Amino acid sequence: MNEQTVQQPASGLARPEVLTPEERLARLPLRDDLRGQHPYGAPQLDVPIMLNVNENTYGVPADVQDAIAEAVREAVAGLNRYPDREFTELREALAEYLGHGLSAEQLWAANGSNEVLQQLLQAFGGPGRSALGFPPTYSMYPLLAAGTGTAYLKGMRADDYALDAESAARQVRELAPNLVFLCSPNNPTGTALGLDVVDAVYEAGEASQAIVIVDEAYAEFAQLGTESALTLLPGRPRLVVTRTMSKAFALAGARLGYLAAAPEVIDALRLVRLPYHLSAVTQATALAALRHRASLMSEVEEIKHQRDRIVKELSRLGLKPAASDSNFVFFTGLRDPRRIWRGLLDAGILVRDVGIPGSLRVTAGTELETSAFLTRLEELLAVES
Amino acid sequence: MNEQTVQQPASGLARPEVLTPEERLARLPLRDDLRGQHPYGAPQLDVPIMLNVNENTYGVPADVQDAIAEAVREAVAGLNRYPDREFTELREALAEYLGHGLSAEQLWAANGSNEVLQQLLQAFGGPGRSALGFPPTYSMYPLLAAGTGTAYLKGMRADDYALDAESAARQVRELAPNLVFLCSPNNPTGTALGLDVVDAVYEAGEASQAIVIVDEAYAEFAQLGTESALTLLPGRPRLVVTRTMSKAFALAGARLGYLAAAPEVIDALRLVRLPYHLSAVTQATALAALRHRASLMSEVEEIKHQRDRIVKELSRLGLKPAASDSNFVFFTGLRDPRRIWRGLLDAGILVRDVGIPGSLRVTAGTELETSAFLTRLEELLAVES
Repeated sequence: MNEQTVQQPASGLARPEVLTPEERLARLPLRDDLRGQHPYGAPQLDVPIMLNVNENTYGVPADVQDAIAEAVREAVAGLNRYPDREFTELREALAEYLGHGLSAEQLWAANGSNEVLQQLLQAFGGPGRSALGFPPTYSMYPLLAAGTGTAYLKGMRADDYALDAESAARQVRELAPNLVFLCSPNNPTGTALGLDVVDAVYEAGEASQAIVIVDEAYAEFAQLGTESALTLLPGRPRLVVTRTMSKAFALAGARLGYLAAAPEVIDALRLVRLPYHLSAVTQATALAALRHRASLMSEVEEIKHQRDRIVKELSRLGLKPAASDSNFVFFTGLRDPRRIWRGLLDAGILVRDVGIPGSLRVTAGTELETSAFLTRLEELLAVES
Repeated sequence: MNEQTVQQPASGLARPEVLTPEERLARLPLRDDLRGQHPYGAPQLDVPIMLNVNENTYGVPADVQDAIAEAVREAVAGLNRYPDREFTELREALAEYLGHGLSAEQLWAANGSNEVLQQLLQAFGGPGRSALGFPPTYSMYPLLAAGTGTAYLKGMRADDYALDAESAARQVRELAPNLVFLCSPNNPTGTALGLDVVDAVYEAGEASQAIVIVDEAYAEFAQLGTESALTLLPGRPRLVVTRTMSKAFALAGARLGYLAAAPEVIDALRLVRLPYHLSAVTQATALAALRHRASLMSEVEEIKHQRDRIVKELSRLGLKPAASDSNFVFFTGLRDPRRIWRGLLDAGILVRDVGIPGSLRVTAGTELETSAFLTRLEELLAVES
């Protein structure tokens, strides 16, 4: 951003006051807790191979592109009207997709799962309340908590980033949070939680009446036999399972996050959602995608295959990849991750430095992208040793 | 919503516990300030003539429908990627549309102006801070304040709902708010503020460093000679002018609100916005609409004509319509507004009861819709007298 000249004197020898953007911002009555902060977000660099934000790199199949375009074309005719505030048709389609006997009254959606999580914090968190997360985990949790005035409590994991039922439940009892974030599979480490952990946390949260949020953004990539927390919903009115269409559905650009929970949780969210928060265009896009999900999600198995290949190859290279139930792999054992990150970028391959010593995170891309990443990484490691 | 049976006993004579939705919600750990509240929103009834939420009833012209559909079709190919977090192209187009020498770095947008206002409250309001509005005004202001933990202060208007510079400035000095909402033209009364009021409020807000928000959602319908607060932006870093594409642009269903302000205000909003809050589909829709705005906004003059016709006719009927710079008319002088509202609805005409004694609010529709409203109203009033 350019510097800006303000209050330039009409004449005389005094030099105009030149402020940097930071100085200009500092003059505004910003909230104290935001001062000195920087906007959240991974670098948006335009390189040939983008494996940094866990997108589905296969793209939207042509037939689904057609279906979405057609659905939006139909919606456009009525765009002068406010959208259906209850997005009932979309909630029905989401319930049908999730299965598990869910109905539309148990479903809710917003502009990305970030907005879903923000609404949960607005309804059940806020000033004087707290939310517990287990870092390293999704880096938006503390920011969403801060944005809603909710205290963010940091729980502990084992040295290998695992979280077992006993430890998680003990921490919930001790910290008595109002909300708990369980990211499963966890981002950035990629491993799913056993349902015993979710169940133990739910039980332990009884005393503080904690809302337990299981963030299953990457659930569709789980290893065979991994069960969804959706199976635990019956009889657990404080349990919430969040999902997204950004990953397996290859629709990161459409911004559609959603959740399943007891109907009363949905009633609570209606009290804090902005009216008409989900546009008619978003509703039409998501509905068309759900109707064509067989085609849209046809690459999930291939992505899992590349993911497993990355884990295997990284082990062969002497690195330590975490077990992954997602479309990305977190690995440690690097002497100088910044050098590796830079070296990959120089070859047009963007991965993610999540700020954990000795580690990087890479999205499983197409076979070609994955091969390019592995080949270049091996070259870079050879120089290191 | 149906009643739900919970904790049904496996056997025995005890009857299952049946809870109403309200009782189920009451069992959840909802924030105290939300308890007993009801979701915001006008009734969404499907009737032939909808004049209740100030939509543009002319609809989107066919050529603009085509342009939007085409733009979205192009965007869909890249939907597997996250959208441009900075929506730079859209901000450039909005700056070009507004004119006044504005550049993209002074523009910001979100999913409806409600989200724009929420972000302003998150950045500059929050716990321990206050926002001043002048009721009757846009009913979302207190709800947005509550949703962000900001105290909402109610200023006073004259008996005819006018707000002059001296009174407004005095109240700002006395109440020392952190933010001020000036709705111009005001919703629900429809009258624009003079720029002397905005200027006086800005000066009076110097002591409390108040962010002054001029909500110009209906600016395109202003009477000839009404100036926009955009003209006041140079040299006023605490001034913010919000706009929407929901009204003149006939895009309520697309959810695109925006604002113009000093670049440092935009920097502040980047700290609280959810990453990728504006979908690629929304960006494409808004961009296409802006490129075809001549066609899209071709009905604005006709709407203003119908609006002026309503004002004239209501006066003839012995009612008291407020001067309107918007696409709606607020009128008082009704003995029994509920009866009139109901009588209009029975004829398939939905208007808005904004809760002010003796009054209703009606959107200026097409000539036919306006005629239907006026004819039916005259019939209903004849019964009254």
